[in-house]
Amino acid sequence: MPDLTPDEFRALGHLFVDAVADSRAGLERHPVRDDVEPGTVRARFDTHAADAPSPLAAFPSLVEAVTGDAETRWQHPGFHAFFPANASLTSLLGELLSGAAGAQGMLWSTSPGCTEVEQAITDQLARALGLAEEFTHTGGGGGVIQDSASSASLVALLAALHRAASDPEGGWRARGVTGRERVYVTAETHSSLAKAVRAAGLGARGLRTVACTPGTRSMDSDALRAAMAQDAGAGLLPVLVCATVGTTSTGASDPVAALAAVAAGHRAWLHVDAAWAGVAALCDEHRWVIDGVERADSFCTDPHKWLLTAFDASLLWVRDAAALPAALSITPPYLRDAASESGAVVDYRDWQLPLGRRFRALKLWAVLHGQGLSGLRAHLRGHVALATELAERIRAHDGLELAADPVLALICLRASGTGSTGGDDDATRTLLDRVNATGRVLLSGTEIDGRPVIRVAFGNPATGTGHLDDLWTILTDRA
Amino acid sequence: MPDLTPDEFRALGHLFVDAVADSRAGLERHPVRDDVEPGTVRARFDTHAADAPSPLAAFPSLVEAVTGDAETRWQHPGFHAFFPANASLTSLLGELLSGAAGAQGMLWSTSPGCTEVEQAITDQLARALGLAEEFTHTGGGGGVIQDSASSASLVALLAALHRAASDPEGGWRARGVTGRERVYVTAETHSSLAKAVRAAGLGARGLRTVACTPGTRSMDSDALRAAMAQDAGAGLLPVLVCATVGTTSTGASDPVAALAAVAAGHRAWLHVDAAWAGVAALCDEHRWVIDGVERADSFCTDPHKWLLTAFDASLLWVRDAAALPAALSITPPYLRDAASESGAVVDYRDWQLPLGRRFRALKLWAVLHGQGLSGLRAHLRGHVALATELAERIRAHDGLELAADPVLALICLRASGTGSTGGDDDATRTLLDRVNATGRVLLSGTEIDGRPVIRVAFGNPATGTGHLDDLWTILTDRA
Repeated sequence: MPDLTPDEFRALGHLFVDAVADSRAGLERHPVRDDVEPGTVRARFDTHAADAPSPLAAFPSLVEAVTGDAETRWQHPGFHAFFPANASLTSLLGELLSGAAGAQGMLWSTSPGCTEVEQAITDQLARALGLAEEFTHTGGGGGVIQDSASSASLVALLAALHRAASDPEGGWRARGVTGRERVYVTAETHSSLAKAVRAAGLGARGLRTVACTPGTRSMDSDALRAAMAQDAGAGLLPVLVCATVGTTSTGASDPVAALAAVAAGHRAWLHVDAAWAGVAALCDEHRWVIDGVERADSFCTDPHKWLLTAFDASLLWVRDAAALPAALSITPPYLRDAASESGAVVDYRDWQLPLGRRFRALKLWAVLHGQGLSGLRAHLRGHVALATELAERIRAHDGLELAADPVLALICLRASGTGSTGGDDDATRTLLDRVNATGRVLLSGTEIDGRPVIRVAFGNPATGTGHLDDLWTILTDRA
Repeated sequence: MPDLTPDEFRALGHLFVDAVADSRAGLERHPVRDDVEPGTVRARFDTHAADAPSPLAAFPSLVEAVTGDAETRWQHPGFHAFFPANASLTSLLGELLSGAAGAQGMLWSTSPGCTEVEQAITDQLARALGLAEEFTHTGGGGGVIQDSASSASLVALLAALHRAASDPEGGWRARGVTGRERVYVTAETHSSLAKAVRAAGLGARGLRTVACTPGTRSMDSDALRAAMAQDAGAGLLPVLVCATVGTTSTGASDPVAALAAVAAGHRAWLHVDAAWAGVAALCDEHRWVIDGVERADSFCTDPHKWLLTAFDASLLWVRDAAALPAALSITPPYLRDAASESGAVVDYRDWQLPLGRRFRALKLWAVLHGQGLSGLRAHLRGHVALATELAERIRAHDGLELAADPVLALICLRASGTGSTGGDDDATRTLLDRVNATGRVLLSGTEIDGRPVIRVAFGNPATGTGHLDDLWTILTDRA
């Protein structure tokens, strides 16, 4: 039989688990990012796959031999680049059960467990984050696991397009987009919104970049009001406003409640992209990240970033449970189903773009079960404490300066300059390269007002105060 | 620290592996599909998640207690519904390493190993399937792993829209869709194409359903030629033709080469959706499934259906490596990267809609490594042999009849009728219900020409001749 027997899997599974444990335990013996030339890994593969099977027991060491010098180690405690991508060992246990079930949760009936656990867990998490009850499945809305915040933004946009254009011509589902639809963002909004606008067929002209309030990186609600009024007056159709809580570059936030009020005046959809920061609402002192969300149509945050859950698990909540199915449902004969037609169940295929879907709620459930909300709060607070400490050290240091106010566990810094504008751009670029060249930490760069900035995003569960000290030594030695 | 230590993971991982092995070994003690009322599983969850952590060692039995009577067991050897969703134990080993790496392969530099293994494995698989060298990364095209064939179709459509509308007004990226774009399918094409057309903003009017050749369920190339000419003459823009190899309902195939020739006359994109059937090209005797693909722009097949690879792993190959990035790339400052700008690498974020991506190539690699091409061929041939045997028995049986020609491992059947039109619709519906009510097998239904049909899709690695005999007994006892 061309698969392992359960007993073969049992023996090999133990070996692979040991390999994973050894690999995690040994991460710090490796650089965070290997220095590798393009093509190195590909060159190690034969042109053709082998006809004969090879022993799987040797596979972990084969993978190590082929890729072990060509990795960027996202789980390394010195990884502070981009945003974290928590692949906690806790969540891997849930992932293992999910893979073993091999369920396809496209319809309720194709895996009632998959669907209902996802409903229950997203309801529990909505309450733990302090979201309004309207966002739960019991409250008329509901949560769904998407693969990424990019996909969450895209399906929110599609729901918004459908809602905005239910006109006598048959609306968006029949007619498609008209070229008049407009989506509102700022220059700080994640690029996935621009990608969603492009994918949905609106073109770059469909994306309106609204000004930020002077001196901030937050959307100016007056500027939004003016832009929407101008567009509506010109016969255009305001469809969606994206409010970000915790931008990728600097962690800035838009004023959700104020933007929601403006959007409501045009019956436009208000989507809140809190992909990174949203999970912090688990902690009372960070509950501000959901301020105003009670007025939004949808809210997204990613447990696969900073909530101990292996990629992919992006959470999207919508206020109206009918909104996504209304936009996305199409039912051919081979998917017709008595439970679906009863109206008593959720068919998650209508809440996302792909048809197939995994039992991803199991890994979130494993994390909630194994860590409890108290453990998740401790996880978040630990990183915020590291960032707060780093910010204090930077403020007290002559050669470094904060480039933006610290937000949660994200610090933006640069090399101090002698001029009146603050910062030394060349020194900042050089500092980032030299710090990363050590291999002991990995930071990433961005720009603020067109000038280079270094980002430090804490978030790895294995990162502790010793790693902060290490980072500080590396930074100050090279500044 | 709010995660398991490597040693805690080692101990728990062994327990979870054992739970998976036990669960697989015991599948046949359960019905394929539990009979469960909507809301049963949700009602077992507390309204709020617990603050305190609970022991993870108890998690597998908790999951079983909560969902164990509410499952549809896709890995059960009696599961012959829809198409198979192979979550082989072999691929779970690869998935475990992938989760542990926790790499984000959005850019080459964020995980060179993730990117280059995917390039190497998709190249190997392209050659193993007999695809033209142009579809490999070394041949100017390349393969990419999508989450599903739905997403593959959508990104192919976006690339086609971009290519079709590179006009002086700035094209699709700037202007969006115009309402003139047209996509060509048949009534047998998977509904994900209609969903892609909707998502891309073309509306239902953008989808042209071309007639099948009389007496077949295959697109008529003359009808396609006439439809495209009519549209072009009316000032519309033919953008993409979707040719299906192995439709979901009956396994029918469109004449790819003929359709490609027609599409080429309008410079329209030819996408081949062989989500289920395409993997059969690994076997010489089934190589016909890629006939004509050498003239296509893109080709999709899903190892997560019938090639022993746990969901999600849908393979998309494109002839032009620049096509997807040209349509999808957007680069904000925080994703700027020296390797990307060198042009020497592939950044897979530009080959898909989401930004983030897992190291999914590892599970494909594990399957190739552990089974070899010979094992994969044996897997496919085993199911085709079961289907061939079932078809022969149906032909020889008075109460059953084939409703369509068998294709690979898919059989469409119905209860025999006494009239001249063949089949008894009420008896067919009753038969499907009664067969599924046994719990020992699960079949799914569809329609052919508006009349009910029962589908049997073999594909589970654990399904053998004993299960065929069991199915046959159940079918004939109830016919």
